[in-house]
Amino acid sequence: MTDPYAFQLDPQLEKDTVLISDWHLCQVRLMNDSRYPWVILIPKVDGVSEIHELAEEQQQLLLGESMRLSKALEQLFSPHKLNIAALGNMVRQLHVHHIVRFENDASFPKPVWGVGDAVPYDPEALDETVNGLQIAFELL
Amino acid sequence: MTDPYAFQLDPQLEKDTVLISDWHLCQVRLMNDSRYPWVILIPKVDGVSEIHELAEEQQQLLLGESMRLSKALEQLFSPHKLNIAALGNMVRQLHVHHIVRFENDASFPKPVWGVGDAVPYDPEALDETVNGLQIAFELL
Repeated sequence: MTDPYAFQLDPQLEKDTVLISDWHLCQVRLMNDSRYPWVILIPKVDGVSEIHELAEEQQQLLLGESMRLSKALEQLFSPHKLNIAALGNMVRQLHVHHIVRFENDASFPKPVWGVGDAVPYDPEALDETVNGLQIAFELL
Repeated sequence: MTDPYAFQLDPQLEKDTVLISDWHLCQVRLMNDSRYPWVILIPKVDGVSEIHELAEEQQQLLLGESMRLSKALEQLFSPHKLNIAALGNMVRQLHVHHIVRFENDASFPKPVWGVGDAVPYDPEALDETVNGLQIAFELL
């Protein structure tokens, strides 16, 4: 079901994100945009663009991994709100955004998409953020 | 758990939407914006603004109802893409958008939020849309 040899990460997602963890169903990747803690779950299943196209067992795994990620983001960042979304208008490969929102962030209360340009992390901050998330995942 | 006496629909959601169906966990409501087939699931649980705050059993029900709705939208409308999102930056009561997107719709490929103004259905089209969805739900 999650045979890595059958999974090809979309090149745009690969370009915009860095790998944090590899879970049972999903790759967990950080959006390289320091304006928001923004993590994307990408089920390692080729040819799927909608959640309901996943097998039921995969849907359950996605829910579980989304909740695990949400709890980690809440513990690490104490957000005002999480934004969780499967859009896919630009990149059809199924991917689920999990974005930590604060009332003073770059686009609040609007959604983040299409507002300004991404501000890539500097290398140290990128390492710190990835490490912080990896540790939070282990504690959950 | 879903005692209706313990659930108060947010006034903004009530104003923007009309009831289509009442499911086990969620109210199923149509956004009164004829630019997109746009249906919102609102778990009948007070005081919850994040999916991970639901009890695990409620999370499972939400997943099931979201998939049922997604399949109905796909069958009725054959969308280019579904957009599914729990944002809640404006209205904190947990609600999950399910929006049917086409490449020629009013905001594609952007997300729908904040693009132009809602175009309310005329009464006949509203009835037709609600009835069409109710019938599709019964067939699934």
